[in-house]
This record gives sequence, C-alpha cells and structure tokens, in this order.
Amino acid sequence: MGALDVLLKPRSVAVVGASADPSKMTGRPVGYLMKHGFSGAVYPVNPRADAIGDLRCYPDIASLPEAPDVGLILLGPERAEAAVRDLAARGTAAAIVLASGYGEASPEGAARQAALKEAAGSMRLLGPNTIGLVNLSDRITLSASGALEVGELPPGRISLVSQSGGILGSLLSRAADRGIGFAKLLSTGNEADIDSADMIDLLVDDAETDVIAVYMEGLRRPDAFRAAARRAAEANKPIVVFKVGRSESGARSAASHTGALAGPDRLYDAFFQQLGVIRAQVFSDLLDIPGALACGRRLSGRRVAVLTSTGGAGTLVADACGLAGFDLPVPDAATVERLSVVGDSGQAAHDRNPVDVTLAGLQPKLLRTSLRALLDSPSYDALITIVGSSALAQPELVADALFECQAESDKPILAYVSPHAPHVLRALNSRGIPALASPESCASVLEAMLPRGVPPIPVAPAPAVTTLPAGPANEAEAKALFAGYGITPVREIIAATPEEAGRAAATLGGRVVLKVLSRQILHKSELGAVKVNLDPADVAAEAAAMLVRLKAQGAPEPEGLLVQEMARGGVEMILGFVRDPQLGPAILLGMGGVTAELIKDTAMRLLPLAESDVDAMLAELKTRPLLEGYRGAPVADVAALRQAVLGFARMAGALGERLVEAEINPLFVMPEGQGIRAADGLLVLGD
Amino acid sequence: MGALDVLLKPRSVAVVGASADPSKMTGRPVGYLMKHGFSGAVYPVNPRADAIGDLRCYPDIASLPEAPDVGLILLGPERAEAAVRDLAARGTAAAIVLASGYGEASPEGAARQAALKEAAGSMRLLGPNTIGLVNLSDRITLSASGALEVGELPPGRISLVSQSGGILGSLLSRAADRGIGFAKLLSTGNEADIDSADMIDLLVDDAETDVIAVYMEGLRRPDAFRAAARRAAEANKPIVVFKVGRSESGARSAASHTGALAGPDRLYDAFFQQLGVIRAQVFSDLLDIPGALACGRRLSGRRVAVLTSTGGAGTLVADACGLAGFDLPVPDAATVERLSVVGDSGQAAHDRNPVDVTLAGLQPKLLRTSLRALLDSPSYDALITIVGSSALAQPELVADALFECQAESDKPILAYVSPHAPHVLRALNSRGIPALASPESCASVLEAMLPRGVPPIPVAPAPAVTTLPAGPANEAEAKALFAGYGITPVREIIAATPEEAGRAAATLGGRVVLKVLSRQILHKSELGAVKVNLDPADVAAEAAAMLVRLKAQGAPEPEGLLVQEMARGGVEMILGFVRDPQLGPAILLGMGGVTAELIKDTAMRLLPLAESDVDAMLAELKTRPLLEGYRGAPVADVAALRQAVLGFARMAGALGERLVEAEINPLFVMPEGQGIRAADGLLVLGD
Repeated sequence: MGALDVLLKPRSVAVVGASADPSKMTGRPVGYLMKHGFSGAVYPVNPRADAIGDLRCYPDIASLPEAPDVGLILLGPERAEAAVRDLAARGTAAAIVLASGYGEASPEGAARQAALKEAAGSMRLLGPNTIGLVNLSDRITLSASGALEVGELPPGRISLVSQSGGILGSLLSRAADRGIGFAKLLSTGNEADIDSADMIDLLVDDAETDVIAVYMEGLRRPDAFRAAARRAAEANKPIVVFKVGRSESGARSAASHTGALAGPDRLYDAFFQQLGVIRAQVFSDLLDIPGALACGRRLSGRRVAVLTSTGGAGTLVADACGLAGFDLPVPDAATVERLSVVGDSGQAAHDRNPVDVTLAGLQPKLLRTSLRALLDSPSYDALITIVGSSALAQPELVADALFECQAESDKPILAYVSPHAPHVLRALNSRGIPALASPESCASVLEAMLPRGVPPIPVAPAPAVTTLPAGPANEAEAKALFAGYGITPVREIIAATPEEAGRAAATLGGRVVLKVLSRQILHKSELGAVKVNLDPADVAAEAAAMLVRLKAQGAPEPEGLLVQEMARGGVEMILGFVRDPQLGPAILLGMGGVTAELIKDTAMRLLPLAESDVDAMLAELKTRPLLEGYRGAPVADVAALRQAVLGFARMAGALGERLVEAEINPLFVMPEGQGIRAADGLLVLGD
Repeated sequence: MGALDVLLKPRSVAVVGASADPSKMTGRPVGYLMKHGFSGAVYPVNPRADAIGDLRCYPDIASLPEAPDVGLILLGPERAEAAVRDLAARGTAAAIVLASGYGEASPEGAARQAALKEAAGSMRLLGPNTIGLVNLSDRITLSASGALEVGELPPGRISLVSQSGGILGSLLSRAADRGIGFAKLLSTGNEADIDSADMIDLLVDDAETDVIAVYMEGLRRPDAFRAAARRAAEANKPIVVFKVGRSESGARSAASHTGALAGPDRLYDAFFQQLGVIRAQVFSDLLDIPGALACGRRLSGRRVAVLTSTGGAGTLVADACGLAGFDLPVPDAATVERLSVVGDSGQAAHDRNPVDVTLAGLQPKLLRTSLRALLDSPSYDALITIVGSSALAQPELVADALFECQAESDKPILAYVSPHAPHVLRALNSRGIPALASPESCASVLEAMLPRGVPPIPVAPAPAVTTLPAGPANEAEAKALFAGYGITPVREIIAATPEEAGRAAATLGGRVVLKVLSRQILHKSELGAVKVNLDPADVAAEAAAMLVRLKAQGAPEPEGLLVQEMARGGVEMILGFVRDPQLGPAILLGMGGVTAELIKDTAMRLLPLAESDVDAMLAELKTRPLLEGYRGAPVADVAALRQAVLGFARMAGALGERLVEAEINPLFVMPEGQGIRAADGLLVLGD
C-alpha cells in the first residue's frame, strides 16, 4: 500500500495541536473523527492537556505509542515545521498541514512552505493551507471543516478534489442538502507536495469512486493530470472540472497574431476537451453533473422527452434543453396511443413534447403508464420528469414510480423539481434518480452524459532537422522548414536585386506578390515591405522603390527580395503555434483574412495532437462551410489541410523548447486535389 | 377605481365551486383566504353545501347578498361559462377562471375560450388556465396554488406577472425560502382578456411594487407592453423578464439574407434592450435579480471589491464577475492602509482583490472596519461580501455588520453565501442585503444594477412615396426608392442592349459590374446574372453571353441590363429589414461579405428606431473596428452609415404593412466624408 493509500485510509491518526476546547477550530478534528465513526486509533498531541474527551493526550510526537499512519497538524505556521520533521522521523506515511500563511500569502510564506516540504523528507505532505480530507466511504474525517458539524453525511460514489478548502466545505454542505453523497473529499491547498493530479490518480483506483469532481484554481503538472485523466477514462470514471481563472486577460507579447487569438483560458477548454474531461460552466454544475453521472447512465443520442403535469415548468426545461442543442421530438404514433389511455378529460396533451398529463396523470398507475410509454419509445434517448407542487405532500409517489420504471430501462431519467422542495430532491437523488432544481442544469447534465471515450493516441513528433540559429528566421527560411514537414509554400523565388526580382516575376506567370526578405522585419505590411497583385512588368521598379523606402525609414538592410505567385481561389486560414506557461505548446487553426482577429473564429488544441483532434478543430470553426463548397465555391482540400496541421504539430513537437513562435498566415486551402499553399511564414527559434 | 384595481384589491370575493373538502383543489382557495388574513367578505358558492368552514355557502350566484367585487371560479370548463355569465349579469368587476382545457389544449378548447370571453361581456376576465392572483401587500389570495400552504408569506416590494401558474407557485416557494417577499403575484394564463401588458401597466401604479418580474411564454400585444415598459421606466420601476421560446428555430422563407441572419429570439433581445427591460438569462435570475433590485441601489460603474474570509469562494465570485466584464482592481493605498489594521498575523491579504481578511477578520469590529474601508474607497462602485461556513452558527454577526455599514453608503452591497445555508440567505435578504447562492448570479445582479434610463423617443417615419406595384421590384427600382430616403447607390446606368451596356461601361471610368435587371430573378449570382470586375471593353460581349445563358436556363426575360461602378475601398455591410409575426418590423445591420451568414455578426432593433439605437447596434458588432480605421485602413464614414440606417428605418416605417422584404447587401461604407454606396438592392412590396 502506497503512502497516498495510507493517507486515504489510515488505521491511526495523530492530531497534533488538538485542543480540548471543542469551540476552537483546533478542538474540532478529534471530535469529528469520533462523531463520524473512525474505527482506528486517534492520538491527540498537546503538551498542555492530559486528555481530550475520552482520549489520552500525548505531550509530543516522540512519546506516541506507535508511528501514526497519518499526522493531522493543527499548529500555526511557526510550529508546523517541527511537527512535520518529528512525524517524518517517526516514519509516518503522510502529514496534513492545515495552517495558512505560506505560499498563498507572501514571499516569506513561500520560503516557509519550501522549508516545510524539506522537513517532510520522504514523508508525503498534504497542504499546507488545506482543510484536509474526508473519507466518507470509511468514515474517516481528517479535517476541521465546519461542514462536518452536521449529524450524518451520506456516503456516495462521487469523490472531490479541491484546491480550496472552503469550496470543499461548500460542496459538502450543498450536496448533503440535495441527498448527494461523496466517497472522498480531498483538499490539496497549496500543493507543496501532493497535488490534484496525484489525488485524481489515486481516486481512479478507489473502489468506491465512480465520478471525480475537481475544483481547480491552477494546474501545476499538466502531464501528470493528462496521465491521470487517461487512466480515469480507461476506468470509465468521468472527471468533471470547474476551473476558475477564466477572466484573466493574459497579456502576451507576441510577434504573431496567434497570441492575440489565443486567450489563456481557451487553452484550458482545449486541454480538457482533448482529455475527455467535462468542464462545468457554472459552479452549481460541479455538483449537479457528478450527481447525475453517479447514476451510471449514459446518453446515446440527443432526443429528449419531457413529461410534465404543470405546463410552465415543462416549457422551461424544454426550452433550456433546446437551447443547448437537444431535440424534443413529438411522440411517435405508437407512443401517443399508449399515452392516450392516461388522459380522459381532453385536457392532456399527448401529441406534443413536453407531454402534459395534467394533475390527473399523476395517479400512481397512470404515471407509470406514461413513464413506461416514453422510456420504451424508440423516439427518445432520455426522459426528464417535471415534479410540481402537487408532489410536495407525497414525494414518494413520484419517487416510487420513477424508481420502478428506471429499473426497466437503461435510458437516463432526470427529474426537475419546480417548487422549493429540498426533501423531494433528497428523496430522488438518494434513490439514484438525478433530481435538479434548475432547468439549465438539466441541459448541462444531459450534455455531460453523452459518451466521451478514451483520449486518442497522439501522433509522434518527427525528428527535428534544422540548422537555423536562434532568433527570427526570414520568410524563406521559415517556409523551407515548414516544407520539410509537408507544408507546401506558394511558388516563390528569392532575388538579390530589384532587377533579378523583375526577371523572377516574369517566370512565375500571372500577377505576383513582392516582399523583402528579412530576419529583422517581422511586420512587413506595416513598413510597406509587401506589395500584392503586381504586374510582373512593374516588379523591378516597385522593388527598387521598396528598398529606398525601407532605407528612408531606417529599417535594417534586408537579406533579399521574395517574389511569389498570387495565391487565388483558395480559402484563407491561419495556422499558428502558441505556448501556455502552464499547459505547454498548442496549435491554433482559424479563419484567416483581415477580420480574423475581430471574429476570432479559431480552434486550439494542445500538443501532442491526435489525428482526431484536427477534425475536432475543424468542427469547431463557424466558417467551416467555407471549406465545404460554400455558395457554389469548390470544395477545399481538407485532407491536405489536415496533413498540414499534423505536419505543423509534428514540427512543433520536434523543435520542443526551441520553438518560440511559428505561424502561417495566410494558409491557402486550395480546391480538392490541389493541396494547400503557405503564402507567408513566421518563425522564431530559441537557443 | 378601474376594474383591474378592483381585481387586485377586492373587498368581496365569490368563490364559485368551492368545496367543503380541504383536501380537494377546490377546497383550498377559501381556506387560503382565511389563513392569509383576507379582511373582506368571502362568499362560497356551491349548491351541495350549506357552509364551508364558518362561512355560509350560497347555492348560486344569483342568491349572493351583493354583487361580489371579484368572482373566483373553480368550476370545470363545461360549467365555468355559465358562472362567468351570471357574475357579469350581477355587475362583478372581474372574474378569475382557473380551469384548463381551453385554447392551450385543442381547437375545441379555443372555441370554448372564445365563448367564455363572450360570456364575460364588459366584465374583465383573468385566465382561463390561470392559478389566479396573490396580493401579499393586502393579504388577498385569489388562488389555488399549493405554494400558499406555507404558514406565512412575507410581503415584499417585488411583483410577479407570470403566464404560467406553475411558475408562479415555483417562484413563490423559492422566494419564501430565500427571505424574498412579493407584493403581488399575478398569473395571466391563457390571456383571453387580461394579459401581461395590462398587469405590468397596473403594477406601475401599485404603491407597494418597486420591481416587476415577468415570466413570459409569448407576447400578444407588443405595443401595449412597450407603453407599459415606458411608464415603468419613467416610474423608475425596473422590469425583469424571463422569456422562453429561445430555442424555436424559426424557419422563414425569405428572398433576402436578413431572414437567415435574424433568429426569432434575437428580436426579443432587441425588443427588451430598446425598452430598457432586463432579460434574465437563466431561470434563477428571475428571482435573484428582482430580489437584489428591490434593495433600491444602482451601480454607477463596473469596479467591484470582493471581501472574503475564505479564499476559494472569493476567487469563485471574482472570476464570475471578471468573466461578465466587471473590473476587480486592487485596493488603493489609502484603503490598504485602513484594511491593514485588521490583519496582524501576516496571513491576511489586503493589497489584493478579493481582499482576504481570514477568519480573524470576522470579529465584529474588524469586519466593520473592513466593510467601511471598501465602501468608502473611491476605487469601488460595489462590494460583494463572501459569507463562509464560519458564519453558519451566528449569521446575525455578519448580517448586523452589513446592515449597519450599508446604511452609511449608497453603493450596492451583495452577499455570496458559500455553504448551504438557507437561514443565512433569509437573514440577509429579509434585511435588505441581497444574498445569493450562486457566483454567476452575483455577476448578473450587478449587470442588472447598471443604470438603464427611459427608452429614447424614436424618429418619426417619413411619408411613403412610391408608385411601385406589389411584388418584387428590380434592383434599379429598389435603389431609387432607397435613394429617396437618403441612401446613395453606386453610380450605375440602365442599358437596354448589350451594346448600350458596353457604351455605358466606358462612361463610368474604371472596372465595372454587370447585372441583369429583373423583377423575377432575385438570386442573380446563382444564375450567373452578375459579373464583377469587368474591363469596360468586355462588357458588351459579357452582356450578350449573359443573356444567352439566362435564356438557355429558361430564366424569365429581364427588363434590361445594369452597369455599375465597382465600389472599392469601403467596408462591406448588410442593411436589412425583417418582420417578426409578434414583434413587428425590425432593422438588421451587420457585416457583409461572403462569410456574413457564417459569422452572423449582426445587430437588430425593432421599429420605430431611435437615433441612439443605431449607435447601440454599431456597438454590438464585433467587426465594428473595421469602421474605425482598422490596421491602417481609413476611418469609415460612420455618420453617413448612421443616416443610411435611419433613412432605411424611416422608409420601412412609412411603407408599413406594404413592406415585405428590403435589403441592401452589400452596403459600402466609404472613407470619412465620402458617404455610403448601396451596391445592391432588394425590395418586395405587398398590396
């Protein structure tokens, strides 16, 4: 059994700094251990007390009768370090440090935190600045969270990993009110040692955990998270993450447009998407989605039936589902037939969706008939039942019917509870019928129930072959490197003089583009160092004028001139590279052209890229129809685009840390069979 | 006193069809009237009972001792009509019909509903298919809603108008749990007579109503709603609407692109925006926003301070606010100084926002110091206080401090309650401190607190001057009409023959566009009836070929040919007209070009338009920077664009019901001082 397993299920716990005064924060944990039924040994440590409750209290760690499996340290930051050292010396598997005043508070705190980690040596450390952990499966509470004050906490199949102790307490108390139970709740705090990825990995192997909920403020080890997420997907345990930091406006200094198009938070969307991790969009979803996924059912399509006895709430839920892209087809004829036995007064509506059975339809037998008709119907993949005020008095009538009919079907069944009725929500959730109090959460829960699968295997990076030095490359050098990865440039010729440029232009056929070739001029257009749509006859003169202009502006001497064919008839895109300080390198694919930065029609994926990631990126683009033969235009060579994106990704993977910036803008996607053309290229390498 | 005033505050009520069995739905209303303290006369009407409770029961309406102010009819649809007729005959001011099975159910029901309205004559009618009304200010419950079962319902300053009775009950019970009180709750049901607009208008004059919440499924009389909304704005009573029907995919058959760009629900956004009505985006906002607005405070800027004692929840709220576009600046030096007296342990963070005072900072005196420092600070327009688990035991400690400090400032103060703690939410809300349980609602509440003002006065339509017949106009006719409203077309010449077209092209100077002129060919590009960027020398031959091609395709004979200058150097936009079946005519302004329908960067406003509406439309466009001198391009003539939009709106207003379709696509907005050019024009008129 590893140290983390011991941390989760210790047989003995030393509570260091425990107070005999239960009104104090330091007085709580021993009491919680007792109250919630910990069956192992508890050793309070406090030199100023002989006993805490019925437990003998020890003056110091050295005098404990055995090395405790886990030490729960309630001391302030000035004394916690010594306790950690003493526990490590005794051979304790893991220590939990609740105190704050470390890395989160100040530079001095950060130094204190480093010393704490140092003191722990090979002993594992949870915290500091954590509220600890709660293992409800085994009734082990290693925490001071006030949420443990409540009498009984029902165990469940969801486990929570939270970087914030306050959020852990908030979710624990909100879940209890809803009848949603947890298996384990783990607060990682400052993550001096054990971090979220460790904990998620641990929970993948936890027999009592079916769903992993994560509250995330920052991600320290993306690769460890990736590995844990992959194992979770393989074990069919969904991960639901709520991540804050969405509003940071990450100011990036970038020579490319890619930086301006890539907000830091959008990369987290990509990160989670690539791993099949569900990202909760509103905080309440961090409880509602895991609560619903814990029922174990998954959605095989987007067709939803809504069964109601009260018009308004049914409309509300149907509208929220429709807005989220679910279909609400009317019942098929056979289902209408089966439903029609329910209504007799001509007031029930059976040929619509929501199906309104009116109050009369709530009689137990009729309700079962309706539920079965909709669950059996081949027209639907899921059923949402509206619970109105009429159910308040006898919630078990609806709960029994749903419970019974749920057993006969494998389709997801949700309940929306319209009035304020926590007892109804509890009654349903505790019997495995996901019950929700917000219409929008019905839709987000259904969305989360769609299948995700195991993340695909990424393509291997190609070997890096470049002799380019550090610093910006010129356009020809950049495109030569890109070409090595299968990215065809537009036809172009390097010229040393204006005259040579003129002669080159004539050989290209048709109108041309003229640029200077320079490692130092990155924004060529802004300096007038690009001319498009030129008659070849004018190129020599234009080139001469361009060089004079640049000189007059004090621009550095260019390496030469570049004459290119005018790419025509393709779809203009942008293909770029971006590196997130936390998440690492990523690829951006988007619509090109002058409005690209205003429209921001882009998709991003982190490296390494799988082939399916490219299709997912294309599917995200609003302007994707431009590639599909829009308004009579030819269908674009999407296969070649796909290979170009994968080639660009392989190049980025191969260059590794050396790659600072890379961008192709515009990248012309030509008609089917004609490939792609890189019409520009930007590359900055590091050492 | 009008009939609706009497309906809201009757002195006597006949309950027709009242049952002596309180377990029946028809047994409830008399009991509710008594329990909630109605002080007027209650007359149960039921031929099969002598008394209901202590009240004498009358066999029929004719035998009532006086004409009741209001009749509450609990009978089924088959008997309600007679009761309505009898009440009308007695001179009752208004009747409420609870029964369903009318227009909402079937065509037969719709006929029954018409008969019911007919039977009411000049008596006002609420319903049918309504749950009735609840006047908590005066303790009058004319309803069968199960939500009235609760012991006590606190009166408040919010009134609700709901087309759904179930939603009324849902909000009433949810509000009670939150400590949010209502003045009046009105369910309009099928709106055979009295509709939402009537009720909103009534509430504008209600002395106990400060905020009007509306649950809307459909809007019958947009103009009446407009008038009521304007009066509400003038009375400084915000209206908050939650409207369903957002997911209807309105399939429109339209010759213009405008239809494809305008979803039916987006026009409701425009409708509410133009009226200064707040649209709740999620259902819980329909309670949270009015609850917060009832405190009477408004926000004068977007700078928010978050005060917390628990890190995670503060981050959560700050993130939600940041995501919604609020600023969270760090405290200014003077405020840091004032806050610094609170913390002594080095764990509190006073120079950040959220300001984390830690648990120590929750001591009553210190908490007041922090609250005052932030409320006094010139850096902030509002304050959100996080209430953590530590407040669960003594919620009054935080409530007292907030209450006291709120009185000393006129800035909005919100509380976010992190754990499940309904008693804390109630304690705060009932004392006028808006308390919320979702971080996202903190942001939506702040957004709703921003000032809105009274809707601007729209511009008057110009007189309609057109002799055009019904049906599609050709492009020249359309543009001639548009030109009459100040919308300049590109320079163009009508030609009868290919040769004439060639000669015309030569006179325009530069390259040209050639089109056929036809009332019957609306999608010219798709038939190859448009050629752009032509050398004038080629026009005659191209025109001849075009005519041959059209003939070969069996297209109708065109009226002639149109030769136009190629508009260059302007920003391409689309200006269109759309008519919503409910909301009426509207203007659409958006980005033009080939990707317009994919990007859907458009803004819409209903007619009549105010000048400020045009600026608001421009402000909505993501591609607005294209008009402002984007990337070295010249600044566009926005003043001319504004006049063109207003001219187009005046034209639409003048044409009234005759206008079926109108669109200018593309509309070129030229550089400043050079005006606009309509490069195409589509117009379809009705009889």
